[in-house]
Amino acid sequence: MALNKKPVHGMRDIMPEEMQIRDYVMGVIKETYSKFGFMLIETPCMEDIGNLSSKQGGENEKLIFKILKRGEKLNIEAAQTETDIVDFGMRYDLTVPLVRYYASHANELPAPFKALQMGSVWRADKPQKGRYRQFMQCDIDILGESSNLAEIELILATTTTLSKIGFDNFEIRINDRRILKAMAAYSGFAQEDYERIFITLDKMDKIGLEGVEKILIEDGFAIEQVERYLDLFRGVKKNEDSLAFIENTVADFLEDDVKTGFREIIESVNATKEDCFKLVFDPTLVRGMSYYTGTIFEIAMPQLGISCGGGGRYDKMVGRFTGKDVPACGFSIGFERIILILMENGFKVPNQGKKIAYLIEKGVTKEVLCDAIAQAQQERQNGMKVLVARMNRNKKFQKDQLLAEGYEEFREFYKEGLKN
Amino acid sequence: MALNKKPVHGMRDIMPEEMQIRDYVMGVIKETYSKFGFMLIETPCMEDIGNLSSKQGGENEKLIFKILKRGEKLNIEAAQTETDIVDFGMRYDLTVPLVRYYASHANELPAPFKALQMGSVWRADKPQKGRYRQFMQCDIDILGESSNLAEIELILATTTTLSKIGFDNFEIRINDRRILKAMAAYSGFAQEDYERIFITLDKMDKIGLEGVEKILIEDGFAIEQVERYLDLFRGVKKNEDSLAFIENTVADFLEDDVKTGFREIIESVNATKEDCFKLVFDPTLVRGMSYYTGTIFEIAMPQLGISCGGGGRYDKMVGRFTGKDVPACGFSIGFERIILILMENGFKVPNQGKKIAYLIEKGVTKEVLCDAIAQAQQERQNGMKVLVARMNRNKKFQKDQLLAEGYEEFREFYKEGLKN
Repeated sequence: MALNKKPVHGMRDIMPEEMQIRDYVMGVIKETYSKFGFMLIETPCMEDIGNLSSKQGGENEKLIFKILKRGEKLNIEAAQTETDIVDFGMRYDLTVPLVRYYASHANELPAPFKALQMGSVWRADKPQKGRYRQFMQCDIDILGESSNLAEIELILATTTTLSKIGFDNFEIRINDRRILKAMAAYSGFAQEDYERIFITLDKMDKIGLEGVEKILIEDGFAIEQVERYLDLFRGVKKNEDSLAFIENTVADFLEDDVKTGFREIIESVNATKEDCFKLVFDPTLVRGMSYYTGTIFEIAMPQLGISCGGGGRYDKMVGRFTGKDVPACGFSIGFERIILILMENGFKVPNQGKKIAYLIEKGVTKEVLCDAIAQAQQERQNGMKVLVARMNRNKKFQKDQLLAEGYEEFREFYKEGLKN
Repeated sequence: MALNKKPVHGMRDIMPEEMQIRDYVMGVIKETYSKFGFMLIETPCMEDIGNLSSKQGGENEKLIFKILKRGEKLNIEAAQTETDIVDFGMRYDLTVPLVRYYASHANELPAPFKALQMGSVWRADKPQKGRYRQFMQCDIDILGESSNLAEIELILATTTTLSKIGFDNFEIRINDRRILKAMAAYSGFAQEDYERIFITLDKMDKIGLEGVEKILIEDGFAIEQVERYLDLFRGVKKNEDSLAFIENTVADFLEDDVKTGFREIIESVNATKEDCFKLVFDPTLVRGMSYYTGTIFEIAMPQLGISCGGGGRYDKMVGRFTGKDVPACGFSIGFERIILILMENGFKVPNQGKKIAYLIEKGVTKEVLCDAIAQAQQERQNGMKVLVARMNRNKKFQKDQLLAEGYEEFREFYKEGLKN
């Protein structure tokens, strides 16, 4: 049978140059987050298919790579539906597995528990440029912390990490699902319509205020309610302190401790943050997942017009596994986007150490060979990167290639010994 | 639907204490191998099912987790066999994906190419103690190097890495498929029986010489051939220089350059190696996979009676993808076994840095909160690991727990400010 040289459709091989950058960035992420007390954990790449199809994952649940049952459990001829032949699925994010992990191990873990996960996830999406069906996610989550200390630490840890990687002039946009709801309530919308309205609001950055207005009216919402709603966003643009404007306008629909807690996040981050980013209240920020219950945030790179990650509070998800809710809040860095940006900007990994190539002629004596290898081992011990290779017939071509790979020095070993 | 808190059957969650050790060991492995010029690469965790079922993987091909086709390509009701409903499979090792990768990208890669891979593989084995269905492999391979420099570098890189992790008194056992074949030929066995004989020989360490003798005779081999074969192994035990004994005895069946090349590996490793291990010629070493074409080797921890990895030369595998053979040689560290040994020995990761816990009373003013966070950020900048947490009502219990987690110092922030 002919073998296929290509990676499976929609996934990709990673070349050494990119891996070097990925490995460096992962190192910075681990180092920085560990300074904030986050601990690395790992879960299997597969989950029970029931856990993945429990409506926690929204649209992602349609994109699960499913694993065929094995052995006696599998009866293909009698099978009618997928449920008959599938038991596991590939995880589509790291949040569902984290919550399962926490539900399973909470007794063995510190409280609150600060988790760092870096791992691949899989989505059977239609492959598009720059989007692959296997990609890395990098999440931090705090479980068991009900106060806004969770949000503050997540934002500071994430922005410190981005700054260490070299990013600046980015924004953290912040909102709260409870502010979103208060704005909808103030406008007179019915509670059962909130999610549908938020889905339209989420398109604001693409279609503008007029676009949102048009869709809401087409969707059959009363024009007075739509205008009252949009007036809030018009007011936001006009008011310097947009948060104060929203707080005051929708005050009757917003609990005081939500206001206080939200302000405290903004003020304490602003008081202690680095200059590399701005924290911006964004009342149009929705974040797709319906599992969010409070604060939501997103990393925006305005020059590039893209988002590079986000997160929020999801206090009701652990309860799905254990029957008892546990406060939870997480922040996910858009690892693949960050790597893409670094690659496009010709990023070079710092402090690579000196690279030396040893070229050994064919047919050297055992003594010369041993001598070369002993020297190489000694130089490695001294911190150098040493490649030991056979000398090609076309030595000039070989050396040019090695120079291109970053080898700065050469040691050449001939039948009669070292010539340099 | 009730959600399942357990990881999928046969796989496991990894707790923070173990992750810390795994991450440290992975760091040492990457650092050390990079000094030898190995470059990290990555392939998708899935491969086309045809690539995985091409008889390269031996018994492992029976253990593939298979991925269900999706969308229109899937017709369950009409399906008769697995082939109808499956397109991808989870990789069961890193060698098949590496060879596919090399076949696909050789033009973009240095020659010879020194690859380092660290990644999970999946085998739908019956779960047993200490063996899981998802586990990490850690492989180095050199492609495009026909000379024994590949073997020498692989053995030195692997043993240097093991030594850096802290292992000593281990053995590298080495043999050559061509020596194995010469011994079988010398004994008068027919070539088509070699693989079957080697499978029995592979059991020598468990069942002894008598056990091997018994099975070979039961299998119907002529008693004179079996005795001639076993006399070789008896001779090995009696002779100080067992390699010379075998070389001389089976000289007529062994090509001179195989002898020279094999001796050169042993002598140059012995001349330059560290004291932490012995390199031992082991004519009973078989290594399961039939794809090996030359040298084979294995890491043995004699005190523990286990093998912790191995590898060898497989010069005929790239040709399966491209039609053109490329010399290849690899060495795989038994990552999971190594972690297990370290855990059982109470291994502690060195140089963890100072850990400080900030405890913040509920209801502190914004000023106190900002002050605490700013100080924490400063101490992180200075290299400390700083946990910022709300103060529990039972502060003593909280501090005892934090002490157990390694937090050595505490800063306490009350409504009226720092009290320390």
